[in-house]
Amino acid sequence: MSTILEICQRARAASYEVANVTGDTKNTALCHMANALEANIDRILIANAKDVEAAKAKGMKAALLDRLALDKKKIAEMAKGLREVSSLPDPVGAIEKTWTRPNGLVIGQLRVPMGVIGVIYESRPNVTSDSAAICIKSGNAVILRGGSDAINSNVAIGNVLRDALTGTSIPADAVQVVPLTDRAAAEELMGMRQYIDVLIPRGGADLIRTVVEKSRIPVIETGTGNCHVYVCEDADLKQAIPIIINAKCQRPGVCNAAEKLLVDQRIAKTFLPKAIAALREKCVEVRGDEETKKIVPDVKLATEQDWYTEYLDLIMGVKVVASLDEAIAHINKYSSKHSDSILTASFDKALKFIKQVDSAAVYWNASTRFTDGNQFGLGAEIGISTQKLHARGPMSAQHLTTTKYFVLGRGHVRE
Amino acid sequence: MSTILEICQRARAASYEVANVTGDTKNTALCHMANALEANIDRILIANAKDVEAAKAKGMKAALLDRLALDKKKIAEMAKGLREVSSLPDPVGAIEKTWTRPNGLVIGQLRVPMGVIGVIYESRPNVTSDSAAICIKSGNAVILRGGSDAINSNVAIGNVLRDALTGTSIPADAVQVVPLTDRAAAEELMGMRQYIDVLIPRGGADLIRTVVEKSRIPVIETGTGNCHVYVCEDADLKQAIPIIINAKCQRPGVCNAAEKLLVDQRIAKTFLPKAIAALREKCVEVRGDEETKKIVPDVKLATEQDWYTEYLDLIMGVKVVASLDEAIAHINKYSSKHSDSILTASFDKALKFIKQVDSAAVYWNASTRFTDGNQFGLGAEIGISTQKLHARGPMSAQHLTTTKYFVLGRGHVRE
Repeated sequence: MSTILEICQRARAASYEVANVTGDTKNTALCHMANALEANIDRILIANAKDVEAAKAKGMKAALLDRLALDKKKIAEMAKGLREVSSLPDPVGAIEKTWTRPNGLVIGQLRVPMGVIGVIYESRPNVTSDSAAICIKSGNAVILRGGSDAINSNVAIGNVLRDALTGTSIPADAVQVVPLTDRAAAEELMGMRQYIDVLIPRGGADLIRTVVEKSRIPVIETGTGNCHVYVCEDADLKQAIPIIINAKCQRPGVCNAAEKLLVDQRIAKTFLPKAIAALREKCVEVRGDEETKKIVPDVKLATEQDWYTEYLDLIMGVKVVASLDEAIAHINKYSSKHSDSILTASFDKALKFIKQVDSAAVYWNASTRFTDGNQFGLGAEIGISTQKLHARGPMSAQHLTTTKYFVLGRGHVRE
Repeated sequence: MSTILEICQRARAASYEVANVTGDTKNTALCHMANALEANIDRILIANAKDVEAAKAKGMKAALLDRLALDKKKIAEMAKGLREVSSLPDPVGAIEKTWTRPNGLVIGQLRVPMGVIGVIYESRPNVTSDSAAICIKSGNAVILRGGSDAINSNVAIGNVLRDALTGTSIPADAVQVVPLTDRAAAEELMGMRQYIDVLIPRGGADLIRTVVEKSRIPVIETGTGNCHVYVCEDADLKQAIPIIINAKCQRPGVCNAAEKLLVDQRIAKTFLPKAIAALREKCVEVRGDEETKKIVPDVKLATEQDWYTEYLDLIMGVKVVASLDEAIAHINKYSSKHSDSILTASFDKALKFIKQVDSAAVYWNASTRFTDGNQFGLGAEIGISTQKLHARGPMSAQHLTTTKYFVLGRGHVRE
């Protein structure tokens, strides 16, 4: 079995090759990979069955089992994802700008791949193929380190994808699945700064926190979403309830689902009973502040901790605020800087909210559920960045690139 | 004395204010800061004298003392730097792009400040004012943590700049100098992920390594430069020697100085004796590989470690390479991904070198010494990034910004 160091060294070597192939070569390879997944459904399902059996034996919850288990349809979706990524424009190779200095030096910026991307993720085996697709499209090599629950599935998918690369101009080592799932291997991987250019954790808050704390490789933090909907006193209240319900309930377990509702005090008495009734009709548990409780006495009282919490469940915190300024201050204090929405008829208020709320995506009169690579029109995403460095918001293939300066002289020396 | 937490909390609060002032306000504040430095030369020099005295008492080397000691001219240069930054275009506020989705959602990206920048640096007190200038220009609050050697100077400069902000629309807490120089305070600062958006180490390799290892805040790695000049067999040899001498000797202690010379084997016999003679005339110690030693027998033999080393001194490693491919592979293995130059008459070779050398700045027929914010025409820099995340190469005020998505709906919910 390969060591972590060997995997990293092979990835670095492969990265120099995949960085220099044409867009057509990458797209052809992605289609090969898609075909190979479909041609090897049985091989993948046999491996997956081992993982599912082991997970059942150790009593994994139904919701997690559902994420782990593959079937023909899910594998067909993985193949479809690969083909969709192949149809996107090539994100590398463009000269972004050039300029000439007074001394005659011509300087420009070239869009290039990052090099080697590390992805650390949990139990969904489709992340293996989705991440490989985006990394290859952007001209990077990828090291995939999934959780122990899905190890057989991940290795099988990885092998199918690697086999598909044989016969293309992209080396198989551009896609590697780490077969070691112990903590020591993960920590070793997170120290491989010389070989891995960026590490992307995909999973729950605990996984992300661990990677942020342990990694010496630059990390892009993804995923945690404590998102807010703020209803101004001048909001179109007919729009407001469908937006709140959509933001909270359309898929409550994902990061762009709303977790908190802020309502202006001038409409709280009339609006809150209707909004809370609508939420309860959708089985949402409401946790309110003191003011909310005065208006709808049977809500549970929210704690300070509630304002920080990403429930990922049918629970919503509700707070009455005195002003736009209070709403902005509350969001900037408690949110995870993911997605927050203002509902208002006022352009001025919306503009202030957009400028001052310090989040990756700021909405006016829309559900927070749109923060997603495909919904934004960027293509499949490898995660939603909630940090400010490099990429913020949905990260698609174009965000796994960087630039380099080129400087063209004619014997130039510095005075 | 404020705690690290209090400093961070005040910086975060101030960041929301400085993010929302106009470009004019920031420029006026920068000019106030410049005037204040000039008006308080005595106050700063008295504080600096304490630092210099303490440094002498503990036997600081002359070169370091020279970096630490301020005089009227150096303070005037700091003021000039502030005024120059004020004259640059405002890097925030622009709408970078907008597009409309098929469902009618309008999406765009707004250029915004990062928020709070942390700068950890060593003994040059002018970093205090230079960093403050770039951070204020880009709409950020800054926390400045200099070394113990310069603590009195840094606090005095910080207080002068803070006083200058009083009476402007920018709160004084947008510029804070950490008065604690112990290691525990530095480590506490490096854990303040909730309050600091990016940490920039400025200094030697040890400082940078420590910050990369200890920080939980995203770091932009700066500065280490093991830069190469590669002379092809078809290079203009009349240009080559002046470029090599400039790259090595014009200022040997800085990161964009060349540390290694690679020479094609087809010209090694004729070119190397001349090149090495020219280097020796400038007092450069040459360390060569076996092939170099065959041609110029009295060079010191380079060790494997030499190829990795940033000397920051009048020393140069010299190696004979068989081909462009070998030169590229050598650079990608040993360089610090800073600045590397090819000297050739061939466009094809230059293009291959530019594409395949994995460095922040790649040169054709020019000295590596141009990798610098001002030389590139970007304005004063806060450092030269050698990592691929976010900013690569010289980082000026524009690189201390990020974007946020804004999403404009008319009651949009996700299907």
